[in-house]
Order: sequence, then C-alpha cells, then structure tokens
Amino acid sequence: MNKILVAGTGITKFGELWSKSLRQLALEASLLALKDAGLSPDDIDGVYVANMIAPTTSGQSHLGPLVTGELGINVQAVHIEAACASGGTAIQLAAESIKSGQNKTVLVVGVEKMTDLSTPDITAALMQASDDEVESFYGANFAGLYALMATVYMDKYGLTQKDLATIAVKNHHNARLNPNAHFHNSITVDDVLNSAPVASPLKLFDCSPISDGAAAVILTSETNVVKNKVKVSVLASSSATDSLSLCNRQDLTSLKSARLAAKNAYQQANIKPKDINVAEVHDCFTIAEVFAMEDLGFYEKGMAFKGIRNAETTLSGKLPINTSGGLKGCGHPVGATGIKQVIEIVHQLEGTAGDRQIPNVRYGLTHNVGGSGSTCVVSIFGI
Amino acid sequence: MNKILVAGTGITKFGELWSKSLRQLALEASLLALKDAGLSPDDIDGVYVANMIAPTTSGQSHLGPLVTGELGINVQAVHIEAACASGGTAIQLAAESIKSGQNKTVLVVGVEKMTDLSTPDITAALMQASDDEVESFYGANFAGLYALMATVYMDKYGLTQKDLATIAVKNHHNARLNPNAHFHNSITVDDVLNSAPVASPLKLFDCSPISDGAAAVILTSETNVVKNKVKVSVLASSSATDSLSLCNRQDLTSLKSARLAAKNAYQQANIKPKDINVAEVHDCFTIAEVFAMEDLGFYEKGMAFKGIRNAETTLSGKLPINTSGGLKGCGHPVGATGIKQVIEIVHQLEGTAGDRQIPNVRYGLTHNVGGSGSTCVVSIFGI
Repeated sequence: MNKILVAGTGITKFGELWSKSLRQLALEASLLALKDAGLSPDDIDGVYVANMIAPTTSGQSHLGPLVTGELGINVQAVHIEAACASGGTAIQLAAESIKSGQNKTVLVVGVEKMTDLSTPDITAALMQASDDEVESFYGANFAGLYALMATVYMDKYGLTQKDLATIAVKNHHNARLNPNAHFHNSITVDDVLNSAPVASPLKLFDCSPISDGAAAVILTSETNVVKNKVKVSVLASSSATDSLSLCNRQDLTSLKSARLAAKNAYQQANIKPKDINVAEVHDCFTIAEVFAMEDLGFYEKGMAFKGIRNAETTLSGKLPINTSGGLKGCGHPVGATGIKQVIEIVHQLEGTAGDRQIPNVRYGLTHNVGGSGSTCVVSIFGI
Repeated sequence: MNKILVAGTGITKFGELWSKSLRQLALEASLLALKDAGLSPDDIDGVYVANMIAPTTSGQSHLGPLVTGELGINVQAVHIEAACASGGTAIQLAAESIKSGQNKTVLVVGVEKMTDLSTPDITAALMQASDDEVESFYGANFAGLYALMATVYMDKYGLTQKDLATIAVKNHHNARLNPNAHFHNSITVDDVLNSAPVASPLKLFDCSPISDGAAAVILTSETNVVKNKVKVSVLASSSATDSLSLCNRQDLTSLKSARLAAKNAYQQANIKPKDINVAEVHDCFTIAEVFAMEDLGFYEKGMAFKGIRNAETTLSGKLPINTSGGLKGCGHPVGATGIKQVIEIVHQLEGTAGDRQIPNVRYGLTHNVGGSGSTCVVSIFGI
C-alpha cells in the first residue's frame, strides 16, 4: 500500500450519553479530529461514515450528507455498513480511496446511538447482522451464538470460565486508565464468575455493553499535512468474510474471516505476527478475544489460555491486547468501535496513550469483527 | 481513471415480486452477471452491495457476507448506503477499489425488497434518507419535498404540468420496450394530468413506484477477462453531496450535488456534455428529470422545457434520456436503481439494448440521486 498517514484523531466519551444525539456525537468526533489534525472541513476530500443501526435507533440513514451537511462541505460522502465491523471497513475503504487517487485527505467517522432503545429492542436490532432466515428469526441472539462457539472451544481445548473472566478483568483494568471508556470500575475474577448467566458459559461480565459514542480518524496521502506529530502510517488493511450463519461453518473454534484477513494484512505490511507490539481486538464477548489471539497468529491453536494465565496480554505483558479497555471495558458503540481501535493504536504509536502507554511500540494491529465472524477487518499501523 | 471494464451484467425483473426474497433477488442478479461475464464466484475479489432499507423491510443488514456466503466465497464484502444513490455509490467505490490495486474483479450488486411493507410504512422507511430532525419528524415525505422544488422551478421558469407529464409518458413508452421494467402500460399526457394529486403539482403518474428488484455489474481491470463482447469502460465516476434538508439550500431549482458531480465526471472522462449520446437519470419524480437535464449540462438553466416540447429526449431524439424507462417506468427498487442505470448504458454501448437501442452510441452517462439531492453520483461510460 502507498504511504497513507494518520493526520488526526477525535473521540467522544463512550457510555450512556442520553443528552447527545447521533448527529451531535458524529460531529463532536469529527471536529475533534479536524482540530487534532490542524485542518478545516474544506481540507477534506471525502467522508466515510461507519454506522450499523441508526435507521432503526434514530430513524436516520444517509449519514454521508448528514456529516458533510453539518460540516458545510459538498464532497463525496458515503455510509459504510458491515455490522460491528463497520468502522474497520470504513477505514479500509477510505484507505483504498486515497490509494486510488480519488481522494487525498479523508475523514472517517464511526458513530452509534444505542441506549435510547430498550434492551430487548436493541438486542433485536443488533440481530440484523446475523442470518435472518436461520438465526434471528428463531430467536437467536449474539450472546447465544458466541456461547455456542465458546462451548465447543472450551470442550476441545480445556479453556475455563476463569480464563474468560481473566480477560474481562484485564479489559476493565485498562478501561480505568482510559478517560473516554464506558466503564471505570475494577472487577475481579470472582465478580465475573458470580455475575448473572447470559448464555452459558458466558456471564454478564463476559459481554460487552450497549454504548453510545463516536470516533473519527483523518487519513491523508499528503505528508506535509501531518505537522508537529509522529507520522503514523496505515501499513495494511484487509478484510474477509464468512457465512452469515454459524450453521454453515466447518469450525466453530476460530473465525475463518479473521485468519484470512490477518494473513493478507501481514503480507501487505510485510511483517510477522511476532512483530506486533500492541493489538486492539474485537472482544464483543470474552471468548472472541481468545479466538483473536489465535486467529491473528499470536498463539498456536488452542494455546491462548497460556497467554491469559501468564498475563502476557496485560499492559506489562509481552503483547498487550486491548489497552483501550476493549469492547468490554471501553464500550461498544458499534459503528464507532473499529475507529476507536485505530485511535488507540495511533496513540500507542505516537506515545500519547497516557497511563496506558506501552514502551517501544513500532507496530500495532486492529481486529474488527462483524456478526459472529461473518466479516473481519485487520489493519496494521506503524511508525 | 485507469482502464476499468464492465465484464458482465445481470438484472432481475423489477416489480411486485412477492414470491422472491431479498436474498433470492440479490443472488439471481449476481449469478446472471457472473454467467454473462463467463466467470465463477472464485474469480471475484470483492463484493459491493448497494441497499438502503433491508434492515427495516427484511430485518437484515450485513449484506456483504449475505452475498459472499451464498456464493461460497470469503472475499472482502461491504454494504454501501447512500439512500437512493446507493447503487451509483457502490459502483464508484468498487471502481476505486480496483484503481487502488486492492481488487482486480469486483461484483457490485444492488437490491431492494420494498413491496412487503404497506405504503405508509415504506414511505416512512424511505424518509430515513431525509433529515430526521427537520423533515421526516414533521411528516414531510419525498413527494412533498420534490413538489416544493417543482413549485419554485415552475414559477420561475414557466415549466408546465403538461411538460412534466410528457416526461412520464416518454418513460412509460420506453419501459414498454424493456422486458424487465415494472410497468408495461402506455400512458397519455391526459392520463397523467387526470391522475390523483399526490403533492401538488405532482400527480400520481409524476411519481416513480415502489418496486422489488436487483441488478448486478462486474467490473474488472483484467482486459483478458472480457471476452467475446464489446469492451465498455468506466471513464469516470464522481459524487458530491449537499445538505440533507431542503431548508439549508440556497437554490431549490437545481441540485448542487449533481452539478458538482457532473463537473468532476466530465473532467475525469475529458469530454463535454454535448459528447454524451444517451443518459439514464434519476427521475424519482418527473421534476427530477428536468433538474437532471440542466444540472448535467445538456440544457441551459430554465431551458429544459424546450427539450421536452421538441421531443429531444425520446428514443429518436438527439439525446435520449431514460431509455430503460427510468425510475418512473422501469421501477425503483432503491438499492438496485443506480446499478440498473449502468446496465442500461452498458447495453446501449454494446448494442444489445434490443427495441430500445440508440444508434452510434459512443458515450453514456448515469445520474443517481439520494434523498432530495443530498447525494448525487455521476458516472460516464464509453467504448
């Protein structure tokens, strides 16, 4: 991939933001990113908006011109949807648009407004990302689908509920150090194990929350646009897909889409999994972080438990994962999540991650999953 | 833009297709396009799905992996939404992905399943494309918004209801010659003028219908993939935006997004409006075809009526417009419309447009609008 730089980032608080609308959140993150980049709206050639369920939650689609209209510009603007991987997908397509020569400087903003709906209603809305004909129609939900995968994996590889709980504890710990995170409460392994069952073996604290929030990144091919800051490059961005429904998969202990996207991304960036210093992965449920640890090549198949038990993915471990707090601790406003992951990696590469800063970061990776693994986008960033 | 060729096209019947699901329609068009191109699913590197309201009408988002899953492939797949300009936008982004080097051969499929909902429900769903805060919330609908624009235009430039009716008559005439069109009934100017008022001055026959349908195009940079057929190139694809709401526009007699997109497209293709031999434009309401005739540079501002009265845009006129029947006659399954426009232009360039064939077509143009002009994509094709 040609040189594509991150010119600026902006992010809102994640959480239950009842006083802010979808539009306000998208605009807040966009303006913060423009300010961070030292750019004005007129410097932007294209706008990519990541969102999954605004039509259902806010009665609003056509989010491209929603954003350009508020910014007072008339450039190309599109809404990208790939369920919970909408953010990562928008980053990929924005990078493609720059590489194609169509655009030079692009705003990518992800937003979701979820907490206005009741829990049953938002759970049903999220199931639009599953297979309507064989999953959601029959009452399945994503906790149940991931619980099925967790059951198969745990039976085959000996992973325990305590291992899963350890992931949630780590991610809540990291979120406490992130001012924008949804949750700032510490939890213990016992808290997780004693929390209410959602879909066995997954407990309440194995599940990421319903959040509002927005995040924005400005990408550019103009090196002179990036001033007075560390030059972070998009080294790779690749995605792959798998069947919408679990029943069409050959293996429930891994996401094929993630393995394919990762393989291509490593090739594009010309590096190996062992070169990655920090990763943001899609822990919508704790079991999903286990899958990511293996699908991304960080651990051999069935061996993620060793990394968990040895605390290798904590802030002081050899490969910190989800320093932002992940979806579990930082929150999961769906369209914003993939962009938030990129922002965290950019901050780690810039050395601006505050109390969560990892030393000597050269390469960082994001892993953004849609549905039960039907889409996965893997991007690699470096300095 | 580098050489991007059309490798194949596929389209379903447009209409009230109660026996076919969203998924069946998307798959039918995709398989027809693959067959036309002489390709198998394994030849496809990326899938771009254009759709506006499947989450509302079919409880289904995440249409990228819906299509790849059905085709049995695991490549990049994304859902693009830009209201009624979703199809044209997907074409543009697919072309960008090829130009960026990310993909070589891409399937672009647009689909919409609309007739399962009641008229009030589908009208409300379509209003997700307007500004929720200042338009749809207050009960506006698109017929009303276009009627406002028509009123201003007709008052300023002397266009008559009979002129508008003449457009509907032309488009129904062309649709009669198109086997896939929603409508095959001839209408007269009196039929239009005597039809029920929907939002004055627009009558029932000034309005495009609610339709089901799907359309697919395969684009490729591999010239050896296109065998035994006329090589049609994508010469330009450009889009622009304007405010979501009419109240933020300075001029209601033209679409700024269309003027900007057209200007850029002509520059990319290095041709002038007078070079275009045939155009498919977004006649969601008859007044919208009038705007297109001027915004695309075919007629001076306020002068479209001359072209209408002189029958210059009929099949035998100097610049045939909407030979497919347009949205009015061919139907308007939202996500499919922008792709259907491209297919009609490709057929005209190939010389395979049957009874609708225009002689000596060298350049064709598509004009696809979202909302009340908040998005417009203009693409130019040539041989």
